[in-house]
Amino acid sequence: MKMSLYYWPMIPGRGEFVRLVLEAAGVEYVDVGRIEGVPAVLDAVRGSLGGRPHRALPILVDGEEVLSQTPVICTYLAEAYGLAPGREHRWGALTLLLTAMDLVTEAHDVHHPVSSRLRYEDQQPEARRAAELFVRERLPSFLAHLEGVCRDNPQSDWMIGGRLSHVDLVVEQLLRGLEHAFPAAMASAPIPGLRALAAAAASLPRIAAYRASERCIPFNRDGLFRAYPELDVPPA
Amino acid sequence: MKMSLYYWPMIPGRGEFVRLVLEAAGVEYVDVGRIEGVPAVLDAVRGSLGGRPHRALPILVDGEEVLSQTPVICTYLAEAYGLAPGREHRWGALTLLLTAMDLVTEAHDVHHPVSSRLRYEDQQPEARRAAELFVRERLPSFLAHLEGVCRDNPQSDWMIGGRLSHVDLVVEQLLRGLEHAFPAAMASAPIPGLRALAAAAASLPRIAAYRASERCIPFNRDGLFRAYPELDVPPA
Repeated sequence: MKMSLYYWPMIPGRGEFVRLVLEAAGVEYVDVGRIEGVPAVLDAVRGSLGGRPHRALPILVDGEEVLSQTPVICTYLAEAYGLAPGREHRWGALTLLLTAMDLVTEAHDVHHPVSSRLRYEDQQPEARRAAELFVRERLPSFLAHLEGVCRDNPQSDWMIGGRLSHVDLVVEQLLRGLEHAFPAAMASAPIPGLRALAAAAASLPRIAAYRASERCIPFNRDGLFRAYPELDVPPA
Repeated sequence: MKMSLYYWPMIPGRGEFVRLVLEAAGVEYVDVGRIEGVPAVLDAVRGSLGGRPHRALPILVDGEEVLSQTPVICTYLAEAYGLAPGREHRWGALTLLLTAMDLVTEAHDVHHPVSSRLRYEDQQPEARRAAELFVRERLPSFLAHLEGVCRDNPQSDWMIGGRLSHVDLVVEQLLRGLEHAFPAAMASAPIPGLRALAAAAASLPRIAAYRASERCIPFNRDGLFRAYPELDVPPA
């Protein structure tokens, strides 16, 4: 039986990290929201799938397993489909996923600093203050960390271990999102290792084919990464 | 050789979740920041411990293992010291930890909505807006989810599996923090299962002894959970 992914059908969002791992693994899956629409996705988060309740999307169903939280799903898939780095990198890989997700959350909160329950249009002055501090302090700090991890990996040019892993797919999508939302801020970022890694991940045949297909939803103004020029503050 | 915890010596913060797992496991550890001060903690996050770079505190050193990210450290310790629920609950336990940490971050961001790089005093109007939406929408939603998980656990009155796990220690500290920061909002929260769980966890002999000792740092106005009366909006 095919795996089922439950996620909003109109945005890449956090579901995109899961989609990329599924696509890179060459796994057949049903993107339920794209077929059955938002009601099926809402039902899933409200408990229609049974088992332990889930707090948020994405949710992945693989037979008896019903999983939520993006880093959990990505790790599960990576272990199941040979994309995880060696056992000795188990904790390091999870740490990197959580750090990448911390940056995802901070990048989202730039356009939603007061609350995810308000629209961007209702928190614009706060968002402008948030953008300046994000671009000048938080973003460079996170990028320097991730670049250092990549540069100091003694085994390969990937983030961890000797070959491509799910961590690289997550980092590639994160960079792609940041470049979409903060093009001016990202243009001069000193991250040659991450750029090379992202280019290598994006040119994997399965990832390139996915991105060229209609399965891949473009960035837009409802997702995590939004191109609001007024928030793309030039770096100091 | 004893384990070493690197965390800020002046706040409970995210380090407290790790301290509670260490204390419940009865493990001897060195809380390096309490002995050597902030410089030793800063050196650790800057890479003095060797191995892969770390983005943020807490950091735990156990022989060759150097770990960061609170859910990673808590899971590592739980598996090593018999506090993890059964293998069948591996993904469920990690999902609950990440959900608890999401609520930790949202509770922190109420007093730091614009940026963690500014002081609370420099983002007070934004914090008041954030508090209202947090107390009336986000907090009840998270609590209802966690209460449902606890209530629907068929094996025990703990969060997951048939006995106490590290997840319960994290949830107990989270509730304690929320009750410190948002006493009015928490007073009427319909969470009988979580309250019973928290009381049971807090009365474990090792946890009670830790809390009564000088090793335990009280909540204060520099940590995650801060008692600002102006942000403790009454629920709707």
